[in-house]
Amino acid sequence: MTASPEMAVSSNTQTLDFDALVQLLEQIFLRHGTSADVAKTLALNCAGAERDGAHSHGVFRIPGYVSTLNSGWVDAQAVPVVEDVASGFVRVDAGNGFAQPALAAARALLVEKARSAGIAVLAIRNSHHFAALWPDVEPFAYEGLVALSVVNSMTCVVPHGADRPLFGTNPIAFAAPRADGEPIVFDLATSAIAHGDVQIAARKGERLPAGMGVDSLGQPTQDPKAILEGGALLPFGGHKGSALSMMVELLAAALTGGNFSFEFDWSNHPGAKTPWTGQLLIVIDPSKAAGQNFAERSQELVRQMHSVGLKRLPGDRRHSQRAKSAAQGITLDIETLANLRALAQ
Amino acid sequence: MTASPEMAVSSNTQTLDFDALVQLLEQIFLRHGTSADVAKTLALNCAGAERDGAHSHGVFRIPGYVSTLNSGWVDAQAVPVVEDVASGFVRVDAGNGFAQPALAAARALLVEKARSAGIAVLAIRNSHHFAALWPDVEPFAYEGLVALSVVNSMTCVVPHGADRPLFGTNPIAFAAPRADGEPIVFDLATSAIAHGDVQIAARKGERLPAGMGVDSLGQPTQDPKAILEGGALLPFGGHKGSALSMMVELLAAALTGGNFSFEFDWSNHPGAKTPWTGQLLIVIDPSKAAGQNFAERSQELVRQMHSVGLKRLPGDRRHSQRAKSAAQGITLDIETLANLRALAQ
Repeated sequence: MTASPEMAVSSNTQTLDFDALVQLLEQIFLRHGTSADVAKTLALNCAGAERDGAHSHGVFRIPGYVSTLNSGWVDAQAVPVVEDVASGFVRVDAGNGFAQPALAAARALLVEKARSAGIAVLAIRNSHHFAALWPDVEPFAYEGLVALSVVNSMTCVVPHGADRPLFGTNPIAFAAPRADGEPIVFDLATSAIAHGDVQIAARKGERLPAGMGVDSLGQPTQDPKAILEGGALLPFGGHKGSALSMMVELLAAALTGGNFSFEFDWSNHPGAKTPWTGQLLIVIDPSKAAGQNFAERSQELVRQMHSVGLKRLPGDRRHSQRAKSAAQGITLDIETLANLRALAQ
Repeated sequence: MTASPEMAVSSNTQTLDFDALVQLLEQIFLRHGTSADVAKTLALNCAGAERDGAHSHGVFRIPGYVSTLNSGWVDAQAVPVVEDVASGFVRVDAGNGFAQPALAAARALLVEKARSAGIAVLAIRNSHHFAALWPDVEPFAYEGLVALSVVNSMTCVVPHGADRPLFGTNPIAFAAPRADGEPIVFDLATSAIAHGDVQIAARKGERLPAGMGVDSLGQPTQDPKAILEGGALLPFGGHKGSALSMMVELLAAALTGGNFSFEFDWSNHPGAKTPWTGQLLIVIDPSKAAGQNFAERSQELVRQMHSVGLKRLPGDRRHSQRAKSAAQGITLDIETLANLRALAQ
């Protein structure tokens, strides 16, 4: 894979291809102390999000990665330790490193176990997850497997019926293959809004819809800055989203040996942004199911969803943006690109 | 276990103990053609819901069971066929019978596999589920296991962004052990409201909160009768609840070999009420997790939830009602009890 030249320039934006963006991000990670493996894994992840139009988890995250690395909060050279616990259970101690290299280290064993046992679980602990969750599950669907993942994060969500925040944004991601199209993939924060989207709204000076969060006094607010400065988010869907967020804490932390969202203390690491928690993945081999035609069945569900008037599936926007980026390159504004290049020096 | 006498009589209600209610319901099931095994399993399930104050899945369901059995829609004598597929995968063909006897038939093998492999999945197909989902997962938590279950039902929920209904109410239930208290258990419909609660509101002549459903023209309505008569429910939490409902269709139907919520046709069985679909259970053994102290960790989460002001955990109301029923018996209104006795004759 060689870096391609930049592909287009307009007055305020510049377009570069995926490989060039990956290489640029890789340089940034290396420049800030990560191992080559970690740099490669995080650069692919972050560039992939940008390519797919998932901007809140694209290059927007790079300054947070950099300040975290500069703070000494994460072991940027950590080598994950994979533990083969049982015929369907793999553990990884991420060694206070990032979660994505831990998943990469255990992935082959996890897939082997899922195909043999029919289902397998990967419990990652002592890990930092600062990215979107769908890139962790989508590749399993391309291999014909069904995958579910949860990750807890940092206290910023008030449990339904409580007064003060406790849970993280605690996303749930799911991926399943289908016969005649891209996999079915979703990634949803159990908070009413993703933290990254609050940050983006604050940066743009936009107000949020009602019901997303509270201010530092616990009062409802639509000001993203009030949420970020001492306020908190609400769970989506009231008590139901709150119950799911609680489940994510139990699966991603209690069941992995990782920290709950309220347990880590980064006060001695100014600039640290990455939650130090755990992540759980469950992978199922649908070829073990009766009928053995899962991908045809999921295709039928999609067909029926369209027949009742659904225009867009979860994930459709990412796939169309991905195709557009492949054809036309990835467009960044010039200031963003200049900042990235400065970080790579 | 012998039936105890009724314990108290007031003007409009009568109180009986759990065993007496189980025996009465068992007689009703037997009287309407079920095998002894099926009668026992369903009677315990339904009486347990009534005992725990889960009225929409208690004796309220009996007329629906009876009309279904009378319609010939379900094989009331079905003997589930358990298939041992892999070290973590069990399938059951419920034989057009109820899901609960299928779970009971496979349960020991499922637990054995979960304890050995660390995780195991049970895929039930060709099954009818007409009960609450939490009774299926709670017992695993009492054995120290973590359990997650999903079941699809019958077309009555409009996918977010679509015009017409497709999904079922598609609940998700979860149970986890904790050290110093009852298990953490929740059971949530991915519809904005459970179908049983709409039926109860219709019977009482009550209006629903906004955002629960649409009428037969697809327009928002708060009239439960308009929802039941050609209308439909909405998913909880907008696109997120809708994505979870879609996941339930994929896991409970596509992955089991069961019907999607829109696939069965009961038009030749007037009186049939039970969706003919599938159910998936995932059971995890937390003793395989790092630290091996899951129940202490979940207890810590509960402690922290209370410390931020949460008064009541999911499941707390059921447990307090269960204790009350054990002490004082289960109270039914006289008319309901008379109707049940008539059905048992």
